Amino acid sequence: MGEPWRHRHWFRVRYGDTDQLRTVYSARVLDWFEVGRTELLRDAGLPYAEMEEAGACLPVIEAHVNYRGRTKYDDRLEMRSSASMVGKARVRFEHEIVRADGGVVADGWTTHAVTDPSGKAIRPPKTLVDVIGKQREPSE
Amino acid sequence: MGEPWRHRHWFRVRYGDTDQLRTVYSARVLDWFEVGRTELLRDAGLPYAEMEEAGACLPVIEAHVNYRGRTKYDDRLEMRSSASMVGKARVRFEHEIVRADGGVVADGWTTHAVTDPSGKAIRPPKTLVDVIGKQREPSE
Amino acid sequence: MGEPWRHRHWFRVRYGDTDQLRTVYSARVLDWFEVGRTELLRDAGLPYAEMEEAGACLPVIEAHVNYRGRTKYDDRLEMRSSASMVGKARVRFEHEIVRADGGVVADGWTTHAVTDPSGKAIRPPKTLVDVIGKQREPSE
Amino acid sequence: MGEPWRHRHWFRVRYGDTDQLRTVYSARVLDWFEVGRTELLRDAGLPYAEMEEAGACLPVIEAHVNYRGRTKYDDRLEMRSSASMVGKARVRFEHEIVRADGGVVADGWTTHAVTDPSGKAIRPPKTLVDVIGKQREPSE
Repeated sequence: MGEPWRHRHWFRVRYGDTDQLRTVYSARVLDWFEVGRTELLRDAGLPYAEMEEAGACLPVIEAHVNYRGRTKYDDRLEMRSSASMVGKARVRFEHEIVRADGGVVADGWTTHAVTDPSGKAIRPPKTLVDVIGKQREPSE
Repeated sequence: MGEPWRHRHWFRVRYGDTDQLRTVYSARVLDWFEVGRTELLRDAGLPYAEMEEAGACLPVIEAHVNYRGRTKYDDRLEMRSSASMVGKARVRFEHEIVRADGGVVADGWTTHAVTDPSGKAIRPPKTLVDVIGKQREPSE
Repeated sequence: MGEPWRHRHWFRVRYGDTDQLRTVYSARVLDWFEVGRTELLRDAGLPYAEMEEAGACLPVIEAHVNYRGRTKYDDRLEMRSSASMVGKARVRFEHEIVRADGGVVADGWTTHAVTDPSGKAIRPPKTLVDVIGKQREPSE
Repeated sequence: MGEPWRHRHWFRVRYGDTDQLRTVYSARVLDWFEVGRTELLRDAGLPYAEMEEAGACLPVIEAHVNYRGRTKYDDRLEMRSSASMVGKARVRFEHEIVRADGGVVADGWTTHAVTDPSGKAIRPPKTLVDVIGKQREPSE
């Protein structure tokens, strides 16, 4: 995955995230990935809420999750997130979710188009390209 | 509750509705109530999707649920729904959710304002008032 | 509502909490109430995860929400929570959710039975009664 | 994808599935895939609820979604599902979700281990292998 990670935040597994196997229901990990990209972009100085209000949306066009270990209600998890441009028109976020004991719960990625609110492709805003380009520098 | 019920439909408990107590997570019942009112309005000839596109929205302003019995993954449940006007400006939906063995899982109600898409109160469309008034006739 | 509030925490509206009216989907507020009671109990020294593992569960038997104002994606909200015993066998949590500008988004409450994992009523553990009794003292 | 499809069912987009872009929130597609595999297995004579009660679980170990077209509240969608063994120990479900106008909304797949309820790998039950083997015959 895309280490070194650009952003890390901690969160708790909610009761509503669990299922009858006493672990986390698989679809919830995609909800968590969304929080990861929201927090990465905010931390990078480009809140997604403002970007979308300015007319640039990042709809998901592909998502992939590897479920690697169990987690349960109230576990404190670390979300590690990174981002990169894919060509000139797409954005990719990578994520790894880790338990306090170091065990990996899941990793994966999402790929995003850059569109106007109606879904029509647009050129990625320069602020977005700058933010995502800049964040890869630590890995050089 | 508001018998006789105007609309009934059957649905299954999804795996993602369960929680670690092996029953349904409490918030999901409000998701189910939403399906109940969508199906009631469609059955009454006034699909909510069309109503909202025409500019009349029904945001929830109050919700109440009584949890009366357990249900579990893959149970087939009956949603019983009814609707009434509350004064001239609000709509109330009542629901009862029943297992195949007749046991009541939950009942409750939601109250709705009638607004434009920005949230400003509007006069309820005549088609809505007619549909909801008409549906109470069976109870006379 | 039950001021003075025993516990307060801040959280963000997730993208997945929104709906096509560009506000929060009504059922999500019950998910948030759950986080409120989890954090209140943790703060009081009685993590619910441990309590449930010890065999005492708090299934919701009644829930009520008043939707009082709009909120949107990425808003930072304050959850205010309080708890009290209802008679000797039930627990009630009260909540108020407030925007950064002071506007109330929603308030409401949930009532809970105290049961074993199978759903059979049990006497509330003394630690729970102590924690909930103690927390009401500030209001005297 | 894995045509010919073994199972098809129709469902509606719920209001709670939408997000502020007026389309479906990406994580919901994984919830829908779960319904697809539940219905495929029921149709094949092996309800997953019974299989899990008998001690054989199918936790997701990998999930992939391609988002191919927009859908919106109340759209009637067709879920097409298929299943196959991956080697002797894993199961793969493939899905395609199609609008009434024939446009593809999403496709993708999930891979599952076969475990006991604690998460320990077990040999897939013969009934499962038979059902999944049998269902591939139409493609020969």
